[in-house]
Amino acid sequence: MSLLVTGSIGIDTIETPFGKRDDVIGGSAIYFSYAASFFTPVRLVGAVGDDCPQNLFKVLEGRDIDLSGLERRKGSKTFRWHGSYVKDMNEAVTLKVDLNVLAEQAPKIPQPFLDSKYVFLANTHPVLQQEMAGNLKGAKLIVADTMNLWIQTEQKELKKLLGQIHGLVLNDGEARLLTEKKNLIAAAKDVLKMGPKFVVIKKGEHGCLLCSANDTFVLPAFPAEQVVDPTGAGDSFAGGMMGYLSTQGIFSSATIKRALAFGTVVASYTIADFSLAGLQSATREAIDDRWQQYKAAMSF
Amino acid sequence: MSLLVTGSIGIDTIETPFGKRDDVIGGSAIYFSYAASFFTPVRLVGAVGDDCPQNLFKVLEGRDIDLSGLERRKGSKTFRWHGSYVKDMNEAVTLKVDLNVLAEQAPKIPQPFLDSKYVFLANTHPVLQQEMAGNLKGAKLIVADTMNLWIQTEQKELKKLLGQIHGLVLNDGEARLLTEKKNLIAAAKDVLKMGPKFVVIKKGEHGCLLCSANDTFVLPAFPAEQVVDPTGAGDSFAGGMMGYLSTQGIFSSATIKRALAFGTVVASYTIADFSLAGLQSATREAIDDRWQQYKAAMSF
Repeated sequence: MSLLVTGSIGIDTIETPFGKRDDVIGGSAIYFSYAASFFTPVRLVGAVGDDCPQNLFKVLEGRDIDLSGLERRKGSKTFRWHGSYVKDMNEAVTLKVDLNVLAEQAPKIPQPFLDSKYVFLANTHPVLQQEMAGNLKGAKLIVADTMNLWIQTEQKELKKLLGQIHGLVLNDGEARLLTEKKNLIAAAKDVLKMGPKFVVIKKGEHGCLLCSANDTFVLPAFPAEQVVDPTGAGDSFAGGMMGYLSTQGIFSSATIKRALAFGTVVASYTIADFSLAGLQSATREAIDDRWQQYKAAMSF
Repeated sequence: MSLLVTGSIGIDTIETPFGKRDDVIGGSAIYFSYAASFFTPVRLVGAVGDDCPQNLFKVLEGRDIDLSGLERRKGSKTFRWHGSYVKDMNEAVTLKVDLNVLAEQAPKIPQPFLDSKYVFLANTHPVLQQEMAGNLKGAKLIVADTMNLWIQTEQKELKKLLGQIHGLVLNDGEARLLTEKKNLIAAAKDVLKMGPKFVVIKKGEHGCLLCSANDTFVLPAFPAEQVVDPTGAGDSFAGGMMGYLSTQGIFSSATIKRALAFGTVVASYTIADFSLAGLQSATREAIDDRWQQYKAAMSF
């Protein structure tokens, strides 16, 4: 089924204890799209500047990702992020960020994409997310991500968005910030009261927590002995989750749990190498094998 | 089967965001014994001073815990600990500690206990743990706990102990300190090289990680919306784990996983109230029900 994602497309410079990569492709929509494309065709909506080298998108060649919603804006510059995990692999330190095109108007959703049934609104200004959600009223499932910045500066608009979407994905620090609850289950339950039918809290190396009216459960991360670059892990998780969900059409407790497990497994490929190289090393077959291994590891 | 535990018995004063309790029973051997006694008879070895009020042990009445290895030393004082979780429920701040009897010679293992097949050496000086392990050579399974203090000050003796035991249980911070590895799986694998057949890393609210020659797996904590007092959670976890293992007699991957799940469930009762009140509210039947619930939550 048609899965649309809108979010950032960036040129990243990344430093980790394993080295440094300059000017590699990144951004939430890129990681999400690649991850979801293991499961289903993806429609990408986003914008870059005319400074963006064409070969940056080579990694997406051969993937079932429709780039007709990718705007290349004349006179604009591409979003750039320079981050370091040298001190702590669990939290990036932003050394430099240039919002550039992300600070302009939202990219336009192409007419043929307006019938999308599955939508992921990756992290951006909540007013832009509201606008997107408003344009995709026929969607069966709209899930959004957010970040500290909007929780702190645009909480009113974020809460409006929460009334328009089915699911929210955010990390543990963001959940605590939004709800002022330290306990993550209590925080998740507070988020449910703000509107979404389900909330997924990403806990990095500690896995994820799902909370809905019927369910509360926790899944651990896939055990990884070596994390090379955690950039994009959360977006890859969301991509795997939404990619799988959009092939199912139902949102039973078991389906959602399987989807979270696919997200977990896909993210385990992302963190094993820099930028998209980890995801590029994966195949759907390898993902399915690792998913079975993960499932077996937790049955007793 | 006979399960012996040796460790601390203390008089605790505990402060959490939910209130304060003065002079309540605590100590690793107490939490462990109560937790394990849901599964199997327990032999407790430990020492208190003659200042220890007799009614402190009332909570153990009716439990299948043999107290004939409990020494009441004339002229000695009982171990006391005053801790606070007011700022952070995940890490106790020690406001005051009086080792008292714990700084004296080790308690004697009574003759009838020397045939114990299952042994848990709760945290104490590694030389005392070595002595205990040496006296219990007929044991099928000896598991030990340790703490930061010994890793920092008695690492040579601790490593000697690691050559004498089958399993080590420690928390994430301790594992990182002992191995100088940040990644917990890498840390666990390093611990295995030091001698034990398996290592369990307790991650508090994030569950636990087991590593052996054949297995690496992670289990999440039981989702708890309200943590009232985390004191003794790790010892209760170990008690549930060892209590179950000692009823099985085999140590297959599946058995160990089930044992960790029982430890997880038993600890979820401990943290729900102050001191032993949480464990006192549990029954074996309730533990089995919650275990099934936990198992179901992780199957997909």
